[in-house]
Amino acid sequence: MSTSTVAWVKGHGTENDFLLVPDPDGILHPDLDAAAVRQLCDRRRGVGADGVLRVVRTGAIEDGRAFAGTAEWFMDFRNADGSVGEMCGNGVRVFAHFLRTSGLVDGAGEVPVATRAGLRPVRFEADGQLTVGMGVPGFPESTGLVMSAGGRTWDAVAVDMGNPHAVAMVDDLADPGALLDPPVWTPAEVFPKGVNAEFAVRRGERHLAMRVHERGVGETRSCGTGACAVAASVARADGVTTPASYRVDVPGGTLTIALLPDGSVEMTGPAVLTACGEMDLVLG
Amino acid sequence: MSTSTVAWVKGHGTENDFLLVPDPDGILHPDLDAAAVRQLCDRRRGVGADGVLRVVRTGAIEDGRAFAGTAEWFMDFRNADGSVGEMCGNGVRVFAHFLRTSGLVDGAGEVPVATRAGLRPVRFEADGQLTVGMGVPGFPESTGLVMSAGGRTWDAVAVDMGNPHAVAMVDDLADPGALLDPPVWTPAEVFPKGVNAEFAVRRGERHLAMRVHERGVGETRSCGTGACAVAASVARADGVTTPASYRVDVPGGTLTIALLPDGSVEMTGPAVLTACGEMDLVLG
Repeated sequence: MSTSTVAWVKGHGTENDFLLVPDPDGILHPDLDAAAVRQLCDRRRGVGADGVLRVVRTGAIEDGRAFAGTAEWFMDFRNADGSVGEMCGNGVRVFAHFLRTSGLVDGAGEVPVATRAGLRPVRFEADGQLTVGMGVPGFPESTGLVMSAGGRTWDAVAVDMGNPHAVAMVDDLADPGALLDPPVWTPAEVFPKGVNAEFAVRRGERHLAMRVHERGVGETRSCGTGACAVAASVARADGVTTPASYRVDVPGGTLTIALLPDGSVEMTGPAVLTACGEMDLVLG
Repeated sequence: MSTSTVAWVKGHGTENDFLLVPDPDGILHPDLDAAAVRQLCDRRRGVGADGVLRVVRTGAIEDGRAFAGTAEWFMDFRNADGSVGEMCGNGVRVFAHFLRTSGLVDGAGEVPVATRAGLRPVRFEADGQLTVGMGVPGFPESTGLVMSAGGRTWDAVAVDMGNPHAVAMVDDLADPGALLDPPVWTPAEVFPKGVNAEFAVRRGERHLAMRVHERGVGETRSCGTGACAVAASVARADGVTTPASYRVDVPGGTLTIALLPDGSVEMTGPAVLTACGEMDLVLG
């Protein structure tokens, strides 16, 4: 048994929080494995976060080499349970904010961030917020889809944002209850690998609010792809002409979702760095 | 609006976690007020912990001056919500461990820690654990006391460890359910200011296990005074002769409770320092 000291910076986007671990040349923490991520993310026995974002040059690791020439930085994202994550809309804003704050990219314009789900352009807005290109939502066939939670059942719409979503419009955000258990849907075959479930209400003109139960996690304070799924499904139901912009309130803050004429979606939201420090990890 | 940088060390005792803020002479953070504590302890917008332990010399602050000559160090304890805390059995072990690790006391023997509940002697054990003198349990009249949780009801015993406890022996630790709501007790007047509720089972000879719902907090991973209350009430019911020692398993680990011939209780358990760092607080 030995130990390894990891330097980290903590940040959050709409209360989805992350530990950034700078490892520019991939030589400090090439071994930041699932056990190490779990130690860092443990909220009581470690520092605590929803996930780890290792900051590494695309040329320095296998996963990133496909981006050599198009993106300098690769977001090596792991969930708190140590599993590899492909993309995280809140995480990529925090990642880009960290790159700018630490001088790893210049502060003007846009930075392309390489992720396991592909290239994500992140734009620095004048007000300090960040805008992420989130791709084109898909609407898989889901006629007759219903979702149940808290003893009630609603019609729902399936949305594909790279990951699967089910969006239900409810009368009141309290209606789905405590969301301690995953919502149940039928027909079961619409989401063979599970689903992220959003419950949404209209708050005003182009203003929505939502709660989300994330697959394998539980209710969370925010879900970037979920906010995109909610705005896209509402715009589609209303026959809204693009470009159009929706405010989506999540429990941890507010996101702005823009639906563009090319069919793609952009998400704008905050990113905050809160603390920095070191932790000694116990290696197996 | 201005900012203030706070240096902290994070640690935990049976997964009850704290941010230690060294302020030996009371000049770095005399203004570490409720708002500052809430920022530090916020698990998503801050570092995250159950509470803050400011490390300050007894001579340096009003609260500690009564201990001048008997204890060098005062544990200025605040709960995560910013409220002032009197004592915390898990916290005082972490506090003493920090004093030793950082060279503020020598590592041998015992260190007296001044708290708002009085002096607490902490002994460094050879195996790295720490033992705290927890005082003498009281058994207020509680004939007919019953406590309900999860749709079930049990007889309970009131125990005073400086703070109020109700101990119920259950068949299975799952019986009280999810403990999302505070347990309900009758007669109500036994605990006019609320109660910390323990649900305990016997695991073997002098071996108990418990869950706890802490007043104003919810279910927690560990409660030092609760473990003392459980062991003391079982020993009393069984007519055990002192000295006697109980192993008490809590969700976050294991504590050992010794019942001494003078009627007092000692608690032995681990203390771990996990990370260190800095956070910029926003001052009002």
